[in-house]
Amino acid sequence: MDIAELGERGLIARLGRFFGHAPHILVPGGDDAAVVVPGSGALVATTDLLFEEVHFSDRTTGPFDVGWRSAAANLSDLAAMGATPFGMLVGLGLTSSTSVEWVEAFYAGFTACSAPVGALLLGGDTCRAKSRTVAVTALGTVEAGRILRRNAARPGDALVVTGHLGASRAGLAVLLEAQRYAHLGAPVREAVVAAHRRPRPRLEVPPLVFALSERAAAMDTSDGLTDAIAQVCAQSGCGAVVDLAALPIDAATAQVAAKQATAWALGGGEDYELLIALEPDAATQLVQRLAAIGIGGAIVGQAVAGDQVVDTEDRPLEAPGFEHFNRP
Amino acid sequence: MDIAELGERGLIARLGRFFGHAPHILVPGGDDAAVVVPGSGALVATTDLLFEEVHFSDRTTGPFDVGWRSAAANLSDLAAMGATPFGMLVGLGLTSSTSVEWVEAFYAGFTACSAPVGALLLGGDTCRAKSRTVAVTALGTVEAGRILRRNAARPGDALVVTGHLGASRAGLAVLLEAQRYAHLGAPVREAVVAAHRRPRPRLEVPPLVFALSERAAAMDTSDGLTDAIAQVCAQSGCGAVVDLAALPIDAATAQVAAKQATAWALGGGEDYELLIALEPDAATQLVQRLAAIGIGGAIVGQAVAGDQVVDTEDRPLEAPGFEHFNRP
Repeated sequence: MDIAELGERGLIARLGRFFGHAPHILVPGGDDAAVVVPGSGALVATTDLLFEEVHFSDRTTGPFDVGWRSAAANLSDLAAMGATPFGMLVGLGLTSSTSVEWVEAFYAGFTACSAPVGALLLGGDTCRAKSRTVAVTALGTVEAGRILRRNAARPGDALVVTGHLGASRAGLAVLLEAQRYAHLGAPVREAVVAAHRRPRPRLEVPPLVFALSERAAAMDTSDGLTDAIAQVCAQSGCGAVVDLAALPIDAATAQVAAKQATAWALGGGEDYELLIALEPDAATQLVQRLAAIGIGGAIVGQAVAGDQVVDTEDRPLEAPGFEHFNRP
Repeated sequence: MDIAELGERGLIARLGRFFGHAPHILVPGGDDAAVVVPGSGALVATTDLLFEEVHFSDRTTGPFDVGWRSAAANLSDLAAMGATPFGMLVGLGLTSSTSVEWVEAFYAGFTACSAPVGALLLGGDTCRAKSRTVAVTALGTVEAGRILRRNAARPGDALVVTGHLGASRAGLAVLLEAQRYAHLGAPVREAVVAAHRRPRPRLEVPPLVFALSERAAAMDTSDGLTDAIAQVCAQSGCGAVVDLAALPIDAATAQVAAKQATAWALGGGEDYELLIALEPDAATQLVQRLAAIGIGGAIVGQAVAGDQVVDTEDRPLEAPGFEHFNRP
C-alpha cells in the first residue's frame, strides 16, 4: 500500500506504536507538541537533515538502515557533547509513491537505534516531498561541568580516536561495487557493510573521559577525521601533528580499502567515532579502557602550538571532510 | 554570490550572527550541539518540515517570509500547548545555486519572528538538496498543570477561535492572481498579504486562558478550522456544533474571498490561530480579553456529546483540512 492511499492521518495512526511512552513523557507524540520532563542538567539539542541521493540511497541502504543511521548521526552529536539522550523528533518528507512498509521500516530502524539508549521518540511530522527527506532532532542532558566542547584542546594534548576509521567508507564501496569486492570473504564484506549500515553512537565514552580528566575537547568524525581535527584545532586555537601510521583501521577495512586505507580513515566520513583531545596520561588510560569495553581506539597525534595540522613528516593533512556545497 | 562559491564553512561563519547569545545558552550554535539551561517546567518540543513548491514558493514568498513563516508555524504549535518558547533549531536544505543573500534573508526572517518572543536560535544545519527544504524544531517550557492538550474538551464547552480566519488563504489568492484582485484597494490587498506572509503565533493567549479556567483544550488552526475541530473532538471523544455565521472573518478577507469566505475560514489553513475549548462563561470572558488586547476572536460553536461535527442546521462540516498525501 502506498501512503497516498492510506492518507496522512492513517499513516500517523499506524506509526503511533513507535512513539515513546514513559512516566516522564507527559504528552507523547500526536498532540501539537510533545511534553517531557528531562533529567537534571542542561539541555543539549542538535538537528540534522538527510536527503535521498545525497545522504542515502535505496541502492545501498534499505529503510530500516536509513532510520538507524539518521538516529545514529544525531545521537553521535550528543555523544560528542558528553550528553545523555532522552528524546528524538523526526520529520519525514515522503513521495506519494512511498510505501507504508518503507515508512514503518524507517521508524523501526530509527527506534531500534535510539530507544535502547534512552532516546524515546517524542514527535514526528510527515508530509509530501519531491524526494525522501529525513529531519532529525536529538535531545539530551549534560551536567554543566561535563560538556565536551570543540574549543577545549590545549597544546600538548594527545588526540584519541575511538573505535576504528574508514569502515563505513569501505562498506559503501562494497555496496556500490559488489563485483569488485566479491573475491573477499563474506565475513570481511559483512563487517564493513554493517559498519556502514548500523553505526553505533559512542555514548559510553564521555563518562570514561571525565573519570580520567576534568578537561577534554571532543567532536565526532561524521565528516571524517581530518575535518574533526581541523575544527577542534580551529576552535581551540592550536595545531596538530597526526601520526598516520597510528590511525586505527581494522583488518576488514584494510582488506577492502587496500591502498586507500589512510585516505578513507582520514576522509571517508560517517564513522561516527569520537575525536577526543586530553592530557597524554589520561589519553593512554582512556585507550586502555576503550579496549577493555570492546570499543577500541588509538592515540593518533598531538595538539601543538600554532595553527597547522600536519603529519609526522610535516606535510599538511589533506583529504578535507565532506563539504556539502562543493560543485560536482 | 551562490553558496557553492562560499562553501559550507564560509556560510556557517556568515550565519553566526543569527545565533542566540544569552547567559542561559552555555554552548551556542557551532559545536556538535547547543547546550542551554531552560526555565522551569517541563520541556515542550515540536518539529516541522517545509518544502519549496509544497509549502512555499518563490512566486509568493521571498526568503525573509519563508524564514518568518517556518518559525511562526512551529511557535504556533508551542502556543497551542500553552508553552513559553526558549529555543529554535533549523535545518536548511539548499540547492547549490541558492544565493548567500537568500540564506541570510531566510535567517533574518526566521529570527525576526522568533527572537523577540524569546526563542533564540540554538543550532542549524545546512546541506545540499535538490530543492529547498526547511526543517524547524521549536523548544519551550510549560508548567505541568498548564498544558493545553487536544483531548481536554468536554460536551458543553464553548469553542473559541482567536483572531480571524481565512486571511492567509485570501493573501495567497492575491499573490497568485494579482490581476483578478487589482480592483480592490491596496490596503485590502496588503492586509491579507501580510496575514499570509507574517502570521503571528498566539503565544499571549494561553496565560489568558488559564487565568479564566483550570481546564481547556487547544490546537492551532494551521491546517484549517475544520481540521482543528475534528481533531480536538476525536481526541476528546465528543462532537461539535459549529455556527458558520459566527466565524470571525475580517473585512479585507471578506472582500477578497467573496462567496468563498466561509470555505476559506474553515479550510484555507495557515492562519495559525488557536482553537480553544473551555467552559462557556470563561469563553465569553476570553473573547472579551482577546478583543481588549487587539487580537480579537469569537465563540464559533459548542462541543456536544457524540462524535459528529455539524453546523447549526445539522449538516456535517465539510472542507477537510490539508491532507498532505492526497493525490493531485
